[in-house]
Amino acid sequence: MILKGACILGQSGGPTSVINSSAAGVFLEALKQENITEVYAGAHGIKGILEENFYDIRKEDVKELELLKNTPSSMIGSVRYKLKPLEKDPTDYQRLLEVFKKYNIRYFFYNGGNDSMDTCNKISKFFKSSGYDCICIGVPKTIDNDLFGTDHCPGYASAAKYVATSLMELYHDATVYDTKMVTIVEVMGRNAGWLTAAASLATYKGQGPDLIYLPEIDFDIKKFTEDIKAVIAKKGKCIAVVSEGIKDKNGKYIPEAVMELKKDSFGHAQLGGTASVLASKVQDELGCKVRAIEFSLLQRCAAHLASKVDVEEAFQAGVEAVKAACRGETDKMVVFERAPGKEYKCVYKLQPLELAANTEKTLPLEWINEERTGMKQEFIDYLLPLIQGDCKAPLEDGLPRFAKMKKVFVAKK
Amino acid sequence: MILKGACILGQSGGPTSVINSSAAGVFLEALKQENITEVYAGAHGIKGILEENFYDIRKEDVKELELLKNTPSSMIGSVRYKLKPLEKDPTDYQRLLEVFKKYNIRYFFYNGGNDSMDTCNKISKFFKSSGYDCICIGVPKTIDNDLFGTDHCPGYASAAKYVATSLMELYHDATVYDTKMVTIVEVMGRNAGWLTAAASLATYKGQGPDLIYLPEIDFDIKKFTEDIKAVIAKKGKCIAVVSEGIKDKNGKYIPEAVMELKKDSFGHAQLGGTASVLASKVQDELGCKVRAIEFSLLQRCAAHLASKVDVEEAFQAGVEAVKAACRGETDKMVVFERAPGKEYKCVYKLQPLELAANTEKTLPLEWINEERTGMKQEFIDYLLPLIQGDCKAPLEDGLPRFAKMKKVFVAKK
Repeated sequence: MILKGACILGQSGGPTSVINSSAAGVFLEALKQENITEVYAGAHGIKGILEENFYDIRKEDVKELELLKNTPSSMIGSVRYKLKPLEKDPTDYQRLLEVFKKYNIRYFFYNGGNDSMDTCNKISKFFKSSGYDCICIGVPKTIDNDLFGTDHCPGYASAAKYVATSLMELYHDATVYDTKMVTIVEVMGRNAGWLTAAASLATYKGQGPDLIYLPEIDFDIKKFTEDIKAVIAKKGKCIAVVSEGIKDKNGKYIPEAVMELKKDSFGHAQLGGTASVLASKVQDELGCKVRAIEFSLLQRCAAHLASKVDVEEAFQAGVEAVKAACRGETDKMVVFERAPGKEYKCVYKLQPLELAANTEKTLPLEWINEERTGMKQEFIDYLLPLIQGDCKAPLEDGLPRFAKMKKVFVAKK
Repeated sequence: MILKGACILGQSGGPTSVINSSAAGVFLEALKQENITEVYAGAHGIKGILEENFYDIRKEDVKELELLKNTPSSMIGSVRYKLKPLEKDPTDYQRLLEVFKKYNIRYFFYNGGNDSMDTCNKISKFFKSSGYDCICIGVPKTIDNDLFGTDHCPGYASAAKYVATSLMELYHDATVYDTKMVTIVEVMGRNAGWLTAAASLATYKGQGPDLIYLPEIDFDIKKFTEDIKAVIAKKGKCIAVVSEGIKDKNGKYIPEAVMELKKDSFGHAQLGGTASVLASKVQDELGCKVRAIEFSLLQRCAAHLASKVDVEEAFQAGVEAVKAACRGETDKMVVFERAPGKEYKCVYKLQPLELAANTEKTLPLEWINEERTGMKQEFIDYLLPLIQGDCKAPLEDGLPRFAKMKKVFVAKK
């Protein structure tokens, strides 16, 4: 059965450099489809849908929708909102059903990471059980690259390219004086080390960190200091990259673990991220200059350094979601498969939503080197094809010309 | 009198995205000049010269020297080394004279900021008083833009472009949720606010900070918190940019000043830069999410975001230094003048070294707005022409292909 009705896109979770590109893919493809009567976007994901705050995408200039491809973060707004299990609290579900019926929304696209796929899955199952016909498709997104069942996730490669490029540049800066110097760089990724591992690309190019510490491996602060000492003894400089998610063998995050060790001399925990807490510790031990650098939000919004492959795949993920929906597929998430053969090629497929919703894809431990401080060639071979090519917004006044959306709200019924 | 002999380039101070471009300008032009017999580079500035650690630039591939234009930081190494006044300690001066004579170095180029121009000036005056004929020319460099007598400094525009572009991207990220959120971004510039002021370009494009705090204006933490509260009340989000150099009315830097206010709850001062100390303070007062972001070294080494105008001018500054030297000019620094007329054009001139050595160019106070939290159009008009165009290293494996120098040391005599 082919449904006729409005479609709505929501985005949720932490933004990426290319999540707008996926939105552009959904919007531009949806605008072409005959069975899709209206194209809506929920302001701030599911929250906007619950509150009937929709933007009318038909009111936007197509040229601006095209510019979304190179505009970082989410123009329609994101949200961190977890639906309670239906059996515990059906309020949100019933409200969603009411809203969907009122606006005859028959196509629901949800763009995000694990939690968002969980949301999409719950809604899909609820609609099915309620007898309301609505196609639900998940569009993957996360710089963490930890969604199950897909070769990689839109957003990851651009963040990885930012991490690798910035580390190559930092390498030149951090080695400019002939004095001893330690640089500790913190990369995002609370549970999975995919993004931190991208630092190894810079090392592969001979201009990268000496040491990389992943959340997959128990972090030992004594070994860390010894590792740095050994590099300093040999080279006089050391660049170490740590994941924000590294934990000691008791499962404690480092700022907390170090604070316990040094309760007297530390005050506010919130002042120190992982890198700055470690820098302070190493400085105490080594006595040389130690600098902490956090890539912070920049790694997930530096669209000027996006990977062309990533921008295009993120867009296509949106397009494929709409095409699949219009073929009658539902309750699925778009996934990427790497075609066999030497040349890189991405194949777009679908998998059941619940798979991504409940499983996390971790970095294969066999890609981490013996010393547990770097990555093997297998990882480089995996990642390199994904970061190819540049693709950024046109310049206006020497600065990026990002998309400008009118954001016309749909009149509430 | 036209001198015949070797030339040497040294670089000193903090690196920039384009200081290698100036080195390329010096090297490539010096290689063309008949009166310049050898082309040397001092490893780590004046320190390498004192220790006779020179690289032989004739041994380098010209193709790699060209790639220096887009390679960040200083490939030949930089140094922070201040010559003592001659009357206090003539050791270094006498050693330099000895070295210059031994290698028949007749052209000395020194590339850096105020301190480096001071070094160059001292050496120039000493050689003159010693009767040793040696041409001494300063090549300007600093992201701080605080060298006297030049319209702007090579390195500034690229850092400014990084600051403005990153803030535009952060704007999209930091406004993605519909929850209250404060983002405090810290920009380099210990004494001069030129670079922090560049944040106003993002505001000019409608995607920038609400508040900018410059080191030229006494910083009042109470007013700062009130300013943020007012923006939050109006918009729900606030992005504030602070210079690392802001000081309270007693001349104390903020981490120190805040620590005194809150001695009980704060521990290690080194853990907190200006932004993170302020973020902690604002979070206590406002209770909403507050994030601190430091652009750190990235702002001075992000060559992938360099301004084309800056890369080319930095290169030309090196070329002009050599040309002037070969015309017999000495004891001068290359300066930039803005040609009159609507279209931007840079004219290369010379000024006496001692002017740059002893004077600092501060941000004109009349370009700062009434509220002291932003810049007027005059500043935008000043800066915009300087950040035009992109110019970055070619890609190899999707990552920058930076210059590779052989760094062949000249045999010690």
